[in-house]
Amino acid sequence: MNRCPSVEAFNASLTALPEADREARDAAAARQGQLTKPPGSLGRLEEIAIFLAGWQGCEKPAIERGRAVVFAGNHGVVARGVSAFPAEVTAQMVANFRNGGAAINALAGAAGLTLDVVPLSLDRPTADFTQAPAMEAQECLAALNAGAAAIADADLLVLGEMGIGNTTSAAALALASYGGTAADWVGPGTGVDAEGIRRKIDTVEAGLALHRDSLTTPFEILRRLGGREIAAISGAVLAARMARVPVVLDGFIATSAIAPLTVRNPAITAHCIAGHCSAEPGHRRLLSALGLTPLLSLDMRLGEGSGAAVAVQIIRAALAAHGGMATFAEAGVSGG
Amino acid sequence: MNRCPSVEAFNASLTALPEADREARDAAAARQGQLTKPPGSLGRLEEIAIFLAGWQGCEKPAIERGRAVVFAGNHGVVARGVSAFPAEVTAQMVANFRNGGAAINALAGAAGLTLDVVPLSLDRPTADFTQAPAMEAQECLAALNAGAAAIADADLLVLGEMGIGNTTSAAALALASYGGTAADWVGPGTGVDAEGIRRKIDTVEAGLALHRDSLTTPFEILRRLGGREIAAISGAVLAARMARVPVVLDGFIATSAIAPLTVRNPAITAHCIAGHCSAEPGHRRLLSALGLTPLLSLDMRLGEGSGAAVAVQIIRAALAAHGGMATFAEAGVSGG
Repeated sequence: MNRCPSVEAFNASLTALPEADREARDAAAARQGQLTKPPGSLGRLEEIAIFLAGWQGCEKPAIERGRAVVFAGNHGVVARGVSAFPAEVTAQMVANFRNGGAAINALAGAAGLTLDVVPLSLDRPTADFTQAPAMEAQECLAALNAGAAAIADADLLVLGEMGIGNTTSAAALALASYGGTAADWVGPGTGVDAEGIRRKIDTVEAGLALHRDSLTTPFEILRRLGGREIAAISGAVLAARMARVPVVLDGFIATSAIAPLTVRNPAITAHCIAGHCSAEPGHRRLLSALGLTPLLSLDMRLGEGSGAAVAVQIIRAALAAHGGMATFAEAGVSGG
Repeated sequence: MNRCPSVEAFNASLTALPEADREARDAAAARQGQLTKPPGSLGRLEEIAIFLAGWQGCEKPAIERGRAVVFAGNHGVVARGVSAFPAEVTAQMVANFRNGGAAINALAGAAGLTLDVVPLSLDRPTADFTQAPAMEAQECLAALNAGAAAIADADLLVLGEMGIGNTTSAAALALASYGGTAADWVGPGTGVDAEGIRRKIDTVEAGLALHRDSLTTPFEILRRLGGREIAAISGAVLAARMARVPVVLDGFIATSAIAPLTVRNPAITAHCIAGHCSAEPGHRRLLSALGLTPLLSLDMRLGEGSGAAVAVQIIRAALAAHGGMATFAEAGVSGG
């Protein structure tokens, strides 16, 4: 685990990111060229296998300790009427995760992932960011470290979130990181109506207005506009990078957790696969800003890591083909 | 199995297609509305679960006897220089399928599908369709019946093909079924250059010119311009429909096998899922003509049923969520 003992250590680690193993990547790419198929004909499955080879540092990568982690947090902005569900649903869904009844339980199971659930001070929502920073510095650091600790010994990570109200935080983070207007980043979330979207836009605009002069580092953006579950994902993505563990990003909220990090170093995305593009309108824009092409586009908009867990099925297929196929020479097929 | 004893029986069965079980569909849709997630938030996963419920006739569908079948055939038009690979590769790849070394072996295995390989008179290519009908009526009927027989007792079918030269046949079938120009439907296939594409266009145009006045029934379109492996897929799709077995379509060639059938009855697609959109340019156009939205778009262009087999992973995820999640009432979550 790469914990972040201080704000300075967090910001500094972003400028010293390890790279993928080029030798393993090249070996995997060479292998793809010898398998019994026209070159390139497995499309993104080939890219994925080569990507994982680089980050796992071996020619034939595998998922043996695939892990999904769902971080949960509560948000002060819920008081502003930004969600279709009441705040107590966050804790109720954590109980549902623990009892095995949620979508991520079924989808992580189908993808062969272990599932961890990490609730973060649910009884103590973040502050309403239109009134104050969402978190104190120590709270935000604690959330980053909780995320870093959760990667454990995984060889592939799915990072998910649960937090009533957190699409509003995500929109604020995206706006602070990439600009545009609040309306560019706000959407219906779990299903608010036009009036609810108006309230979300107002909330994001008020938050940006209050904090505008202080949004100068990744840490300050996260701390002032984020949430504990979002900061935990930021911490997990960074710790995974330090350990060269590939990450599958989920939807709008999970992806928003790396937006502030890219402000300091856009290369933070290099070990990340965009698992899917969600139906939340800001997600497509955010993926585009990050330069990531999603694997799936299935109109999902649930969060919990659900879309990323489904994407792991595609990654498993990619590795099965990469590791299991015969070469032209082995199979005695012409034209390799 | 629904065999087609005669041309008349084949054409007639297209006008008497069974429908999905509406009661099972409705029960599955009602269940989706009660699961612990915002309504609709699993997007296409919800649609897929409801679709399978209808065709399998039960509220909680399952894949217990999922089957991938790869049909192989050789094509007289190969003599016209329409492929980057020599015709003997068809038989070599059949041997590779049997030895477990091809992409479809790995991908069917990863998706939990049994794999059958059905070579169809590989030593006797179809006639060059620019000179004569590709098949005699009895040959085409035999291929349709081989396809129908191959569905066995499957509860989900992936239908794939192998046949050097068969993107040219597929383009001719699409053109005969939906019109446009030969250039609209011809692409690089396994990887021909611009000159090869020109030869493919010329071949398709010559075939359509020769047979124009005879392309009046699904059977005549298939027989004159298709191939054995393509007709086998047509026969399998039709037999699967008669048995209410859902089918996952693969790429351009597999999808072209149902194009002539839709000329008689567009409803033939109702039990079919478009597994993916391939990189072969005509496939997107063909899916659009069929009114099918592909599950995946991964730039695959291999055939063999490979894209459809990957799509089965998504279908399994959909069924895992549908069958495994708790309802709001079961989980004690607010807001259902």
